[in-house]
Amino acid sequence: MLQEPTSKIPQATTKRLPLYYRFLQNFANAGQKRISSQELSEAMKIDSATIRRDFSHLGALGKKGYGYDVQELLEFFRKTLDQDEATNVALIGVGSLGSAFLKYNFHRNHNTKIILAFDSNSPHEGEKISGIDTYHPDMIEEKIKEYGVEVVILTVPSRSAQEVTDRLAATAIKGILNFTPVRIAVPENIHVQTIDLSVELQTLIYMIKHT
Amino acid sequence: MLQEPTSKIPQATTKRLPLYYRFLQNFANAGQKRISSQELSEAMKIDSATIRRDFSHLGALGKKGYGYDVQELLEFFRKTLDQDEATNVALIGVGSLGSAFLKYNFHRNHNTKIILAFDSNSPHEGEKISGIDTYHPDMIEEKIKEYGVEVVILTVPSRSAQEVTDRLAATAIKGILNFTPVRIAVPENIHVQTIDLSVELQTLIYMIKHT
Repeated sequence: MLQEPTSKIPQATTKRLPLYYRFLQNFANAGQKRISSQELSEAMKIDSATIRRDFSHLGALGKKGYGYDVQELLEFFRKTLDQDEATNVALIGVGSLGSAFLKYNFHRNHNTKIILAFDSNSPHEGEKISGIDTYHPDMIEEKIKEYGVEVVILTVPSRSAQEVTDRLAATAIKGILNFTPVRIAVPENIHVQTIDLSVELQTLIYMIKHT
Repeated sequence: MLQEPTSKIPQATTKRLPLYYRFLQNFANAGQKRISSQELSEAMKIDSATIRRDFSHLGALGKKGYGYDVQELLEFFRKTLDQDEATNVALIGVGSLGSAFLKYNFHRNHNTKIILAFDSNSPHEGEKISGIDTYHPDMIEEKIKEYGVEVVILTVPSRSAQEVTDRLAATAIKGILNFTPVRIAVPENIHVQTIDLSVELQTLIYMIKHT
């Protein structure tokens, strides 16, 4: 049912990829095993012919009267999302969650690597934590530029989240993966993706108790 | 615009809460600031009158011609999701991510607490890690019953994920928050919520490069 992704995916299709991924993940989390282009169309407000065309560009073919296998599609999108050129990532806040991420360092992805970190306990001249150059937050602007960082993982305490974000807004970074429960305010040119672990756990518990 | 959630929310409404939450989180991640009941209706395939009634039960009132503020709704759902009775949570796999969760222990939620952990380096008779009783995985069945655990956070290495899941399937647990990249297979009575941190990062990077 699934082929290798073709290297020439139209730009319009690539732009819709993360959205497809998100919606499919939702359906998967709700326990749905298969999905028709029509169902996705209604959920995403994209017409179903476009969806079928996009999916065929990606090498995913639905079965007539069955639709698409949700998990296969998800697996497929994961692979496609993984084909970008290298991206330099910095982590801010080497507390317990931050140091877990430094150790983990997103192994599965060859193109994405944390190359720089900041922590208020680190010296201005830097030190190595789990093999990663780690500096005092005073060095954020200078080091983000020097290391060519485009994306920041934010694992600082809540009380520092907006202050650090404001300083990041003055750099050339383009995205923040926000693990604080704070609803950080950013300029329009910065993408924010928030993962609130308490909410994830609470949503699961809620589903268990009420469904 | 938002009142305190009323204590008497109809069962049908409560069942839709996690779904509302998920879809709203999607819209928020896509940068959408406000949303009409009509837009939500099209995305979720729930009729808009039902949505407006549900939201009013929750104390959330839209403004005519403006709709609902996405972030206010999210904040509101977070509070409502947080009102359940206490749930006992166990964590399996005290590696770097697992120990971060033990330290973090989902502070914001008064009703949800990790009360038990398992790690292959822990003794059968148990030890304390970050104040939490931690046992060898051989004790999973016995201790999950003894501690009345309903939900498991899975932070084991990928190679052990399905094996541990199979053993959990034989216990009374009802939900797994899965942090492994493995697509674990479970019986129908167990809910799984997967958070793949690599994919979250990769999705953000993809959005930056292609939008």
